[in-house]
Parts: sequence; C-alpha cells; structure tokens
Amino acid sequence: MKWIEGGVCAAQGFKAAGMHVGVKTHNKDKKDVALIVSDVECSAAAVYTTNVVKAAPIHVDKEHLKNGKARAAIINSGNANACAPNGEENAEKMCAAVAAAVGCEASDVVVSSTGVIGQTINVKVIEDGVPALYKQLAHSAAGSDAAASAIMTTDTVKKEVAVETTIGGKTVKIGGMCKGSGMIHPNMGTMLCYLTTDCAISPDMIRAALLETVTVSFNRISVDGDTSTNDTCCVLANGMAGNAEITEKNDDYAAFVAALKEICTKLARAMASDGEGAKHLITCTVNGAKSEKSAETMAKSVIDSSLTKAAIFGADANWGRVLCAMGYSGEQFDPEKVDVHFTSAAGDIEVCHQGRGLAFDEDVAKKILTEHDVEINIFMAEGGGTCTCWGCDLTYDYVKINGDYRT
Amino acid sequence: MKWIEGGVCAAQGFKAAGMHVGVKTHNKDKKDVALIVSDVECSAAAVYTTNVVKAAPIHVDKEHLKNGKARAAIINSGNANACAPNGEENAEKMCAAVAAAVGCEASDVVVSSTGVIGQTINVKVIEDGVPALYKQLAHSAAGSDAAASAIMTTDTVKKEVAVETTIGGKTVKIGGMCKGSGMIHPNMGTMLCYLTTDCAISPDMIRAALLETVTVSFNRISVDGDTSTNDTCCVLANGMAGNAEITEKNDDYAAFVAALKEICTKLARAMASDGEGAKHLITCTVNGAKSEKSAETMAKSVIDSSLTKAAIFGADANWGRVLCAMGYSGEQFDPEKVDVHFTSAAGDIEVCHQGRGLAFDEDVAKKILTEHDVEINIFMAEGGGTCTCWGCDLTYDYVKINGDYRT
Repeated sequence: MKWIEGGVCAAQGFKAAGMHVGVKTHNKDKKDVALIVSDVECSAAAVYTTNVVKAAPIHVDKEHLKNGKARAAIINSGNANACAPNGEENAEKMCAAVAAAVGCEASDVVVSSTGVIGQTINVKVIEDGVPALYKQLAHSAAGSDAAASAIMTTDTVKKEVAVETTIGGKTVKIGGMCKGSGMIHPNMGTMLCYLTTDCAISPDMIRAALLETVTVSFNRISVDGDTSTNDTCCVLANGMAGNAEITEKNDDYAAFVAALKEICTKLARAMASDGEGAKHLITCTVNGAKSEKSAETMAKSVIDSSLTKAAIFGADANWGRVLCAMGYSGEQFDPEKVDVHFTSAAGDIEVCHQGRGLAFDEDVAKKILTEHDVEINIFMAEGGGTCTCWGCDLTYDYVKINGDYRT
Repeated sequence: MKWIEGGVCAAQGFKAAGMHVGVKTHNKDKKDVALIVSDVECSAAAVYTTNVVKAAPIHVDKEHLKNGKARAAIINSGNANACAPNGEENAEKMCAAVAAAVGCEASDVVVSSTGVIGQTINVKVIEDGVPALYKQLAHSAAGSDAAASAIMTTDTVKKEVAVETTIGGKTVKIGGMCKGSGMIHPNMGTMLCYLTTDCAISPDMIRAALLETVTVSFNRISVDGDTSTNDTCCVLANGMAGNAEITEKNDDYAAFVAALKEICTKLARAMASDGEGAKHLITCTVNGAKSEKSAETMAKSVIDSSLTKAAIFGADANWGRVLCAMGYSGEQFDPEKVDVHFTSAAGDIEVCHQGRGLAFDEDVAKKILTEHDVEINIFMAEGGGTCTCWGCDLTYDYVKINGDYRT
C-alpha cells in the first residue's frame, strides 16, 4: 500500500470539478459546488449523522442509495439545506440537474450540503451552474483539488488523500476528500467525506466496509462535541480496477478495508488537526482498559473535555483534568492504577503514576506540549482494551469563529 | 418566604469565619480556609460528584456522615486534595484540628477542598491556622461573608443567600454559600455548596430534602460539561428554630423543601452566571416535551453546546445550533413541531417555527441577545414535559482562564 496523488480522481474512471456558482454570496472567489462523476455505475453506500434533526439531502440520499448504486455526487457549501423550506425538493433538483448533464437517472446521484442551517438554499444558481461544472470535469489531481476546495467552509486546509494497493492481483486505488472543522464529534460532526475507488466490490460489501471503517476513524475524532445535521460519509466503487468482485468477507475484503481505514484515519486526523481555531492536534490513547469500547469512551471523554483542550492550548501539563475527564466518562475503573504521559516530538514525560501526581520538570513538559502534535498516553491495568481518538485544543479563535459564523 | 441577609449565619446558632492561612501561596490577600460551626449537633447530609475519581475529602465525609450527624465544616480553596499523596490522612487532620478547637469528635466534622488536582495539600498551615480561625467565628453577616470569600477559586463574585419561612408555626431560616465557576456540569462540576438551617428535621428527612433539591437546581446547570472530582453539596440542620421535628414527608417537609429549592436555584443560577469568563447567563426552557426528563435532557444539551454558547457570546441568533443540539441529545422528537424563541429584557423573538427558519429582524435579535440574561425558549408538541436549565456563554476569557490555570 502506498500514498499517491490524485485525491478523488486517483481511481480509474472518476472525474471531478469544483466552481463558484453563487451559493456563497459574500465571496465570489470561493468555490461552492463540487461534482464527482464515474464513467460507469458504482456500488455505493453512505453513513449519516445520528442527529434526530437531519438535513434534507440525507433523506434524499437514503432513497437514492436504497439500491446500492450511484453514478455521481454533487456537494455544495455555503448552505446546509437543513431546517429550511422545500429542502427535499431542492435537494432533488440538484440531483436532477446532474442527471441531465451526465445522462443518468436522478436517483443515481447523491447529494450533500454544508453551511448555515435554516435558510432556503438558492437552488437556481446551482441548477444554472451544473452544465458549466460538468464541462470542467477532469480525471486529474486538478479536478480533485477543485472539488475538495469547493466543499470547504471554515476549513483552513483542503483535505484529500489517495492510496494504491493490490487486491486480487490487480492495482486498486482509493481516493478521498473531506471537509469539516467545527461541529466535529464522534458519530460525525459537520463533516462530509467522499471516497472513490476502482475496486470491484458488491453494494453489500462496500456498505459493510464503510461501516467498519467509519467506526474506527471518523467516529473517533471530536472538535467540539457538537454533532451536525448534515454529516455524511459516502463511498463510490466503480469496479474499473478489474479485480474479481468482492462479494464476501474474504482476504480481498480484508485488504480493501485495511486500505480504506488508512485513508479514513488520515482524513479524520486532518479534520481534527484543522478543528476550528485549533493550534494543536491531540491524540489520546488509552491502553489497558477493560475493553476497546471502554478505552474509546474514556479517550473520547478526554478529547472532548473543554478544560483539557484549553490546558493543551496553554501548553499546561494539567493531567488532573485528564484523569477527571476519564472519571466522568461513565466507565468504572480504579484511579490508583492509572499512569498518564504527555508525549510529542520533543519527548515524553510521565506526569501521573498510579493515580498520583509526580514531581516533574515543568519546563520539559511545556516544551513537549508546545509541539503541534501532542499525545496524551494513558496506561491502565484493567484489561487489554486499547483505543486512540483524535481532537484539538480549544482556542480564542474557536470562540471568535463561532461567535459570529452566520454574519 | 422572604429573602434575608446573613448567608450561612442567618439561621440561629451558626457561626462562620474565613481567613488566609497559606494554602494559596501566591496571594496572601486571598482567604483560603472557611469554617462553619453550629452551637449544637446537626442533622446533616451531603451529595457528591458522580466522577469515578473522587477527592480525598469526599471519602472522609462519607464516613463522617454515616450517622447523619455533624457539628462543623471546614473548607479550603487553593488545593483540591485529589489524586495527591496521603489525601485521606490530610483530610482527617483538617477535621481533627477543628474538632480540637470546637470540642467535638473529628467524625462530627465535614471537610471539602477545591483547587488544583494532584498536588499534596499543605495541611500543616491549615492545622496551625485553625485556632485563629476558630477565634474569628461570628454569628453575623460578616462571618458568612468571610467564609463565602474563603471558598472562592476563579469565582468573580461571592455567592451567599438566605431565606426565612414559617414551618410548624415557627420562623425557620435557611442560608447557603457556594463556589464554582469552571467545571460546572449537571451532576455537579467543581462546585461546593454549604447550607445551614435552624429547622428541626431528622437525618433521613434532611437527606431526602437535599437529594430532591439538588436534582432540580445544581444538577440543571452547566458551564463547560466537565464534572469535577470534588463537588459536594452539604446541609447542616441544628433544630434551633424549635419547630416540631420533621420526621416524615408531611406539609412541614414540603414547606422546607420549597424553601431549600428557592435557595439552591438562586445559588445555581449565580454559579452559571459566574461561569469562567461568562458574559451571559443562558436560561433554556424546553416546553411540551414527552416528559420532564426528556425536556431536561434536551435543555442540558442546548446549554452544553459549545456552538450555541459561542453564538450567544457573539449575540448571534443562530437558532440552527439550538435545534441541532436538541437533535443530538439522544431524545427522539419531531423537528417539524419545534418553535424556538430568544427572549430577554429587551424583548422576545420567534426565530424558528415548526422546525423552519423564520425571516426575522436581525437587529432586534441582536438587541435581545446583547442583554446579560438571555433565554432560549423552546416549544414542542410532544407532551407535557417542561424543564429549565442554566448555563453561560463560551468566551475568550474562558479559554484564557483555563489555558493557564495552574501557573
């Protein structure tokens, strides 16, 4: 398996484009609609937000993906099409516009939106823009780049990756792009992720692979504990790699899932690292918990703790907050069997041993915590459960960005 | 029932004091130990943090209050005596020092600590300070004031209240003081609350009254979602009002609980309003939910949402975040039956009707949200459940305070 260029256009038969059509009214330089089209029909699956309040495109996608097939995807930024009048009708119009250009059924198109909640989406500018967008489609790194740029909201960096691996003797490529920085939480905060692959795999198996992957990647990150109305992670697999179609959980399936997990973990880390206003990527690993689930619950509690996040922003080795966040996670454990380390490229320091504070060099700790990538490594003696989750620090800029997002 | 002066010294037979003994080393002007003593033995009860990691004083208090009796309370700020060596031994030493001065058993003394986690408490300065502290005890507003000041950490205002009511034909007084601003969360964030009353009430009934009251007051506030290791709410009832002792849930019990709820709700609101860095008190009421419990879960989710909190800081009428926070609360409901209003002394505005955004005057909304006390009023059509919770906004100062708390 190796990292390659090309993002969502890395796999054979996928073209992408992105442009400004006018959903974002304030800044004409900002792209606001992305399009991905496969040369042939794909096995397709998606997972969505667990929020009771779901944006209109999610209801539409659930219908369109019932047969496990899709050909294209359209995604806009600037408006979430959630809690807004005529939401589903407008989401369907976006699909119909793409279908007309591609020459497929509207039900072969998936759709996502991200942006402000509660305002009617200007679907007219999208419909009018689709023909031009379609003309710009390219099977190239530039095509992926344009699409990945067009789905950004408060993201500061574009997020796209691709890998190449061998499955059933054939070279298979998987690419992905995502957006999301605020409202990211386990079980999907406003994040959109689109994955494309030329692997031949059945609708059932691509769905299973996606669920398995999301559980250990996107569902293990958190920026602010909020879970949005729009989160969607969608995968399109067009089979053009020519491998024997994966129709059961065999070795080929395992190889595919392994590659998908690599892609999604990298995208998840990129999202956490680009959390709104974030200055640090925080990686928290709990070792030796009763179970993986228990380790996950505690690691999530730590990366969700506003106090821990603010401490990391201040490069303050306040491990008491780490232990405290584990303590209110709902998991039962013996605090007197917990060790806590802070680790980064600048070194490693044990700050808490068996639940008690250690005398440590504050300057060394400060140096470790000043690095961009900071690890909180927790060792317990409850069992064999281990889990890693990712988050970011809480900064002045987070408050600034979210104190006035709409205007 | 009427509000009166005197705080924890309002009730007959209670004396209090507060002074600097040296737990806080940075600032000698800041009081760091408080003492409350009753002239006679009290029925006593306490509730504690649900955090698995519990500070040493909590373990000691659980022992000391097994018989439902106490005579005095000592509370220090500046060090939490949590996750620190010899924690219980040091907490017992604090009780013993008070017992020696008062002339009672150490087991008749309750103890609380608040401050930094993981550092050994300087119990020597407390033991040395107790005789002087004891001498300063006064049955006066000044005594309560000194005690309430001594338990403050990052609090910006002292919090003490008292009420007078009639029970069984006698005048009964209840007073209270509390501290807490960061780490406040439903089920008690670092908050300490001490309540005193001259009501005659049995240990069983004072315990029942406390549980009932905490559930609808302190457990309905949140500052940052973190739950601390030290939270304690303790009540001492010395019976000096001379009413017939309350030994069952009769009318006298109901009258006592009503007064206790008034006190505790006022203290809870004061804590939310004084959340670290807070510029706004947010009161969220959910009406028409399936049940009171369901209303509470949704209201808490709204006041815990970092995005909603940041929006209120920015006076941004971003009601989509309110609906979104309800949606991920875990409660099931029909979003198309939800109305959202923002209300304050400056007016009331409906911003969402039946799950859809309304066109509203942004200037009017801004004016409403610029007030210190802001209400988010939610109306659903699921049933008769109603609940009010309190929180505060998320500000630059919260990040500043918590980015460097230890140093």
